[in-house]
Amino acid sequence: MLKLYFAPGTCALASHIALAEAGADYTTVKLDFKSNQQNSPEYLKINPKGRVPTLVTDRGVLTETPAMLAYIAQTYPQAKLAPLDDAFEFAKVQAFNSYLCSTVHVNHAHKMRGARWATEESTFADMKRMIPKTMGACFGLIERDMLAGPWVMGESYTIADPYLYTLTTWLDGDGVDIATLPKVKAHRERMEQRSAVQKVLAEQKA
Amino acid sequence: MLKLYFAPGTCALASHIALAEAGADYTTVKLDFKSNQQNSPEYLKINPKGRVPTLVTDRGVLTETPAMLAYIAQTYPQAKLAPLDDAFEFAKVQAFNSYLCSTVHVNHAHKMRGARWATEESTFADMKRMIPKTMGACFGLIERDMLAGPWVMGESYTIADPYLYTLTTWLDGDGVDIATLPKVKAHRERMEQRSAVQKVLAEQKA
Repeated sequence: MLKLYFAPGTCALASHIALAEAGADYTTVKLDFKSNQQNSPEYLKINPKGRVPTLVTDRGVLTETPAMLAYIAQTYPQAKLAPLDDAFEFAKVQAFNSYLCSTVHVNHAHKMRGARWATEESTFADMKRMIPKTMGACFGLIERDMLAGPWVMGESYTIADPYLYTLTTWLDGDGVDIATLPKVKAHRERMEQRSAVQKVLAEQKA
Repeated sequence: MLKLYFAPGTCALASHIALAEAGADYTTVKLDFKSNQQNSPEYLKINPKGRVPTLVTDRGVLTETPAMLAYIAQTYPQAKLAPLDDAFEFAKVQAFNSYLCSTVHVNHAHKMRGARWATEESTFADMKRMIPKTMGACFGLIERDMLAGPWVMGESYTIADPYLYTLTTWLDGDGVDIATLPKVKAHRERMEQRSAVQKVLAEQKA
């Protein structure tokens, strides 16, 4: 039995959807970010980074979305969530996920998490003003060069799809009009028609 | 034949070392960041992100260090650069690399690349003041919880090792005294005794 620690509205949604798509046997634990539960002594014993997601397996704890997504794909090969027998195609999936993690998510984090990198109120305001531009540029690149369609990698649904979907749910709040990104918009709509996605969205609201 | 685009002093060093450790047949192309060659029209055709590293394979282009490192490990299995037959252990390697990519490297980037996230000179100064603290905190966590020793994952040398080594070469410039991190310091020294590392450092200087 796998246990996923998540908070609503975070990137943990990607791994949560992947678990559902894989047909994994899992439970979830919802953390309350408003009361800073991710930095409680109990949680820091599980994940000393004080972040979500965390996946507790019977062999130990895993963190970091791209690593967890690849783990889920490799552990449930029958779900065909990644091209596991082709190192080049697998690397393309991983490169997409790494870009979301280290560039797109990081840009987004400058809206609310500026204290990770600076201390002044004027800095936080400066960072916030850039969000529509940086997130717009990232999603412009995804629209133009990276999203093959109908799924990220083309005809095959992979672990790149729930991760992209998760970050697209942030676009409204980040001041990027998804109507200017027709392929991204169609991808989000296609994702929301999947039963695993509907199931997970309901679980996160519960 | 693989072709690696790199610039000295960047995270491309990790993939460069991994190629040498794998015994891969590769060539390199050095980009001049001072003349902004990474944003030249010729290079943007190869990698529209305008970053390094880029790995050109006979099947197409790969980017993003964690994806490239896993690709090298999977393509040269005889080099045993990752626990390829154990999804959990592979995920541990990937989680380490993802943390370096999306947290440690990103913190470092706030010293010289603040214009990615803001526009004001006062912001850049604020960001620069935080570098010793953020990089010190990351490497404190690595020292305490993540570096098993003698290599990152323990007895086995993996693709996590050249990546950690690459980021440790930034510590002096980031105002973190490596003498306060004995395990990290010993790891750096151990890396510099490897013939593949010595070969690559000479290639990057040439």
